[in-house]
Amino acid sequence: MEKTRKLTVDLGERSYPILIGEGLLQAPNLFAPYIHGSQVLVVTNETIAPLYLKLVIDNLSAYQVDSVVLPDGERYKNLEILNYIFDQLLAKQHNRRTTLIALGGGVVGDMTGFAAACYQRGINFIQVPTTLLSQVDSSVGGKTAVNHPKGKNMIGAFYQPQCVIADTATLNTLDDRQLRAGLAEVIKYGLIGDADFFCWLEENIDLLLKRDSKTLAFAIHRSCENKAKVVSQDEREGGIRAILNLGHTFGHAIETAQNYSDWLHGEAIAAGMVMAAQLSHSLGWISEEDVCRTQALFECCALPVSPPALMTSDQFLELMAVDKKVTDGSIRLVLLKAIGQAVVTSDFDHKRLVELLQRN
Amino acid sequence: MEKTRKLTVDLGERSYPILIGEGLLQAPNLFAPYIHGSQVLVVTNETIAPLYLKLVIDNLSAYQVDSVVLPDGERYKNLEILNYIFDQLLAKQHNRRTTLIALGGGVVGDMTGFAAACYQRGINFIQVPTTLLSQVDSSVGGKTAVNHPKGKNMIGAFYQPQCVIADTATLNTLDDRQLRAGLAEVIKYGLIGDADFFCWLEENIDLLLKRDSKTLAFAIHRSCENKAKVVSQDEREGGIRAILNLGHTFGHAIETAQNYSDWLHGEAIAAGMVMAAQLSHSLGWISEEDVCRTQALFECCALPVSPPALMTSDQFLELMAVDKKVTDGSIRLVLLKAIGQAVVTSDFDHKRLVELLQRN
Repeated sequence: MEKTRKLTVDLGERSYPILIGEGLLQAPNLFAPYIHGSQVLVVTNETIAPLYLKLVIDNLSAYQVDSVVLPDGERYKNLEILNYIFDQLLAKQHNRRTTLIALGGGVVGDMTGFAAACYQRGINFIQVPTTLLSQVDSSVGGKTAVNHPKGKNMIGAFYQPQCVIADTATLNTLDDRQLRAGLAEVIKYGLIGDADFFCWLEENIDLLLKRDSKTLAFAIHRSCENKAKVVSQDEREGGIRAILNLGHTFGHAIETAQNYSDWLHGEAIAAGMVMAAQLSHSLGWISEEDVCRTQALFECCALPVSPPALMTSDQFLELMAVDKKVTDGSIRLVLLKAIGQAVVTSDFDHKRLVELLQRN
Repeated sequence: MEKTRKLTVDLGERSYPILIGEGLLQAPNLFAPYIHGSQVLVVTNETIAPLYLKLVIDNLSAYQVDSVVLPDGERYKNLEILNYIFDQLLAKQHNRRTTLIALGGGVVGDMTGFAAACYQRGINFIQVPTTLLSQVDSSVGGKTAVNHPKGKNMIGAFYQPQCVIADTATLNTLDDRQLRAGLAEVIKYGLIGDADFFCWLEENIDLLLKRDSKTLAFAIHRSCENKAKVVSQDEREGGIRAILNLGHTFGHAIETAQNYSDWLHGEAIAAGMVMAAQLSHSLGWISEEDVCRTQALFECCALPVSPPALMTSDQFLELMAVDKKVTDGSIRLVLLKAIGQAVVTSDFDHKRLVELLQRN
């Protein structure tokens, strides 16, 4: 087993560690330091359960362990399925000192975190992300939520886990499409605030696509560092944290239009990031070469670089109008001043946005 | 109009004022200091809407005002009905800077507060309680929740309002049963920490039942003061705040057994407080006279002083086992060391509890 990498998300009394390493789930008493009561509920989905649920449960023999297996997919991230978690907690009489373990990708993490935020007005939880996307993004930072038919992540809470445990070995069972979707978020960190990392990614993208273990571990660590730095400054997204949403306002509109059933989140935001780069270029903020480099890196990963053909500009504008980033009418977007320098702004020529949406 | 009484719940950056006064809802620009964005959604129920919704909306002409009218009753305090609020917020494109106004009793306040805690991961809200119970209890302190078929208030959040506006004139439209249920919570503050107030209540209970406006305003103010003092010390109920639950572990079991459709919350906890007093006496902690005084005061209000005839001790024990106050197996209760001195403890002879439940 390689050395475990560890970093801390610094949030005062809500600080927590992120552990990254190959084979971590095999480590004895892995969870013990982060469990306070005598009960644990493992929340996972039907894809992950056959692969890792037993491994996790075997590591929890000192506790009352129950589990709930959710259907797999973003379209099940809603209040109705969330209630399955509460049903199980109450059926098995879990009290306020119980701990939830989120074993799975972003959907499992978001739902488990939100269930932990709400059950008995707040219990502890641990993130065990098993996809690249959740290891570098959704499991870090305390954003939890479910979707509403009219908008993604509209119902949720900021709620921090006790720890995040990212076992890179779980990525070996990830299908290629999921791996590539995760790389979209990795590339995002380069684009928004880490130009060196963007260059490193251009050089190492093939090794990442081949799942080279050390290269992946470095990319995950660097992504989490980037995210932790931003989240520490602005836990509840009052300001700077919004830069983490590069490509997301476009991407969420795509996902909502598809009812979360077609493109993966990483695919939607890849297209969204290219759109943000194109808009930044048409505003004269970045060069055409920067747009090409951005697009090329996503293309290396076989990710979409333009929105679905059937989406109209009106559809985009309507869906973007309910996005959480909207403040009293004006659409705020994350745009690029350079590769490695994103800004959150509503101070741009709205006509250019409409042109972009009509062109695509 | 009488002088407006004002007190502050001191919670650092989450501090907020409680305004108490007759005819407050008629005051121009009442809400303006507490609304930050340009949108407001008033949440109320079918009983309150015909009485006060227009009055509130007329006071909000400077904003985009929408409203949602929920069915009336504790049995509708669930995730499904909660979703009506999200539906309306999204249908009318409310953004992150919108403000919810909870216009109604405890159910409306609990649901609106929880909706505010969750919508877009947290928006502002204002409590406008229109029942005595909600003016002295549920609208103060930031506990928000919905029920689950297996337990009351099991899904919720600690989430503080921008302010609480208690217009005592709204109590004139309250039916007698609701008024008396509210007095149960008022009496609770005397029992748990304010012996002088308990004596004052013994002397003034007739005036309160006759809805004497000044007497009511004093009782509401004193109750809120008592509650605010406890909440300021322990916002998230890590310790001392649990004393506010005197009678509630028994009371919640009663409400859950009845599926929230028979006794009112105040009625259930009145019986629960008498049970807590009886148990305290059988443990040798308070005198028989103290039990009699307690019971007599509830009887003056025509409130129940024993549990429903059909509930068995087994039913009580099973329902009490999932109560939020349970910590790793042992039932913790709020009991009395004297009138005006409650304690939270699991350190009592469990046999006496079983005897009490079998006797009733």
